[in-house]
Amino acid sequence: MTEELDHGRTGVTHGSRIDAYVDRYAARATGMVASEIRALFAVASRPEVVSLGSGMPYITALPLDVVGELVADLVARQGTVALQYGGGLGDEALREQICTVMSIEGIESVPDDIMVTVGSQQALDLITRIFIDPGDIVLSEGPSYAGALGTFAAYQAKVVHIAMDDQGIIPEALAQTIYALRAAGSRMKFLYTIPTFQNPSGVTLNEVRRLQVLEICQRAGLLVVEDNPYGLLGFEREPLRAMRASNPEGVVYLGSFSKTLAPGFRVGWALAPRPILDKLVLAMESAVLSHSAFTQLAVREYLRTQPWREQIKAFRELYRERRDAMLGALDVQMPDGCAWTKPGGGFFVWMTLPEGLNSKAMLPQAIDKRVAYVPGTGFYADGGGTRHMRLSYCYPQPDRIREGVRRLAGVIEEELRTRDTFGTGMVPGHGGVDTPGPDLA
Amino acid sequence: MTEELDHGRTGVTHGSRIDAYVDRYAARATGMVASEIRALFAVASRPEVVSLGSGMPYITALPLDVVGELVADLVARQGTVALQYGGGLGDEALREQICTVMSIEGIESVPDDIMVTVGSQQALDLITRIFIDPGDIVLSEGPSYAGALGTFAAYQAKVVHIAMDDQGIIPEALAQTIYALRAAGSRMKFLYTIPTFQNPSGVTLNEVRRLQVLEICQRAGLLVVEDNPYGLLGFEREPLRAMRASNPEGVVYLGSFSKTLAPGFRVGWALAPRPILDKLVLAMESAVLSHSAFTQLAVREYLRTQPWREQIKAFRELYRERRDAMLGALDVQMPDGCAWTKPGGGFFVWMTLPEGLNSKAMLPQAIDKRVAYVPGTGFYADGGGTRHMRLSYCYPQPDRIREGVRRLAGVIEEELRTRDTFGTGMVPGHGGVDTPGPDLA
Repeated sequence: MTEELDHGRTGVTHGSRIDAYVDRYAARATGMVASEIRALFAVASRPEVVSLGSGMPYITALPLDVVGELVADLVARQGTVALQYGGGLGDEALREQICTVMSIEGIESVPDDIMVTVGSQQALDLITRIFIDPGDIVLSEGPSYAGALGTFAAYQAKVVHIAMDDQGIIPEALAQTIYALRAAGSRMKFLYTIPTFQNPSGVTLNEVRRLQVLEICQRAGLLVVEDNPYGLLGFEREPLRAMRASNPEGVVYLGSFSKTLAPGFRVGWALAPRPILDKLVLAMESAVLSHSAFTQLAVREYLRTQPWREQIKAFRELYRERRDAMLGALDVQMPDGCAWTKPGGGFFVWMTLPEGLNSKAMLPQAIDKRVAYVPGTGFYADGGGTRHMRLSYCYPQPDRIREGVRRLAGVIEEELRTRDTFGTGMVPGHGGVDTPGPDLA
Repeated sequence: MTEELDHGRTGVTHGSRIDAYVDRYAARATGMVASEIRALFAVASRPEVVSLGSGMPYITALPLDVVGELVADLVARQGTVALQYGGGLGDEALREQICTVMSIEGIESVPDDIMVTVGSQQALDLITRIFIDPGDIVLSEGPSYAGALGTFAAYQAKVVHIAMDDQGIIPEALAQTIYALRAAGSRMKFLYTIPTFQNPSGVTLNEVRRLQVLEICQRAGLLVVEDNPYGLLGFEREPLRAMRASNPEGVVYLGSFSKTLAPGFRVGWALAPRPILDKLVLAMESAVLSHSAFTQLAVREYLRTQPWREQIKAFRELYRERRDAMLGALDVQMPDGCAWTKPGGGFFVWMTLPEGLNSKAMLPQAIDKRVAYVPGTGFYADGGGTRHMRLSYCYPQPDRIREGVRRLAGVIEEELRTRDTFGTGMVPGHGGVDTPGPDLA
């Protein structure tokens, strides 16, 4: 008997990876398996690799010394509130400011319509918690945000993707899917959509379709969950009118300060009809008791004392330059047969590879050539996306973006030569949701 | 037709309390109903009311200016990390420090055994998420922490309470309950216990019983979830050895900085066997993407630069004085037939009323007399606790505690006179879990 097996009654050594609890987990936990691409990304975080994978905002652009003074002042003067338990919907003055932020997108709201959450991810988790029984259906764009698909999977929802083009969800496809699912007796709970500068596609739902999608969902009695972290980061025009602005009772709107200020505060929010909000508050308490009063008040003080509109404008300029660097490099470098989206804002370009190529199978070669991206399979719940990848321009400097695209083009050309010589290889199996981790989601 | 009903297709006015989604919620959401005592506590938060209800720590005792400078320095010097997405298990240096904190209670651990969570409440939520299918059984002390019961209810667990006395869980009762449940074919998932200075009872599981409880659970193959927010806040002796210290593979240990530093950071942790931790990390991502790097690093810098052991000692002295004030006043003021626990640490005294009295029914009268407490029903999942109440001494000053107890004694005497005149009245119905809200949990 080895020393490992001779330790304790359970026969499992402390720190070992043998799982004594393997037959005790909840059904929902069986899908919680780390994707194989995680190990690759651990390698990809080395400085010599250009990461076109990360969804991290470029917060170096923030006035960190000013923010530092602001939080010091907050703790020294209001510490007994800032460091205490919060509760309920969150700090009222912050919620008042959130109303102002949302008014830029045409939303009329009052603080009592809003709950502050641990990033908009938590809002998504709690919405799913209160609406989804195992087997219930969530409709979403295909592709969609990997972090949302992970949350839906955690509650055993079945995700049905709705076809989209470069103008967003195709309304006819939505109507047909609803009709077919209803005919099959399926329990649909909501449409999850990122209508503006979508993650991962960079695509924006146009204004005419926004109203059509709302109309279709309202007729079907289907709630719309509008996730809008990038809405204020447009490069070419004034912010679009939010879907929520056109239908207060049919839409739950999720917002975030992660991209317009900084993700480290974990301050997002849900704007929801009151009865839904009542349930969300109780779900929030059972999940984390209360949001951090400290980070809520830090964001409140930032908004109160700093020129936040100017800061968002600075972020827009910064990301526009990077988007231009990426699109320019793609035009010059990519071989025939590659196609990509042209985002009007946000962080991401969605690329389609020539037939016979597989973005997940290709990733090790790419990392070997010191460039990383997120394979498309992470953005589909149904194994789709093998010919796609998400390229992020938010974090690297323009020169690095150009270098990364150059390297990636080399990898794709190499793959094309292999394909033309040996034909298309096996596509590796797809198990579970490819949740790529927080900074890549 | 009124204007209210003439608004939009759903027939529901924005801001109205009519719930258009009433038939769409998940089964787990049906139990999410606000307790009727919440409305009372909104009144009880007025300054003229002495609240013996709140579980808020007295953070005024912290050196707020020093903490302020420390976070300013953190943002100015390390802002690009502190304000960015975190991820995985959490900041490694913080987890190293957590190992040191836990070593005080005899726990041997390494940073890779620990995940930082949004307060220990989130650890509890995620543990429940990965282990509990609807109908699964959680064993817990009776009474137990209201916030835990709320979380278990949110995942549709069935809580079975184990009898306790002034030395904690009665091992024979635990063994018999496990035997009976197993004979009935029930799916038990874990024992949830707060062995040290329990919330709400103030009771501590003695050292002999700790080992007996561990032995019983190990023989039954039952995981132990040891929740220990108050362990370092003992008044009379060195910290007890944690249950986790005696069985690394059979115990998930939950810790928190909410009581030893401040709750506003929302920094807690789970120490768990590695396979469980792997699942917790994925559950964490689906719940909130990542913990706030900012608050993690703030706690790390506090521990690194400040005399935290001395601060905990100062908290112990402060809470001991308040405990003494409460026990002294109870001895002097309370009428015959009342009984209460004598906590050796932590925040709470658990009181048993004379027969025929009902703590929940009595609460409006108490608030009318400007004193508040949490009725015992909030700490039972089965409608028990009607003759009990939790009295907190953590937040009010000693003089206020004495005044609060004096008022409470008056209310109880009045109730006793009513009982002796009219007999015992009806006990009000008990619907759902009486989750009293964050600052009262």
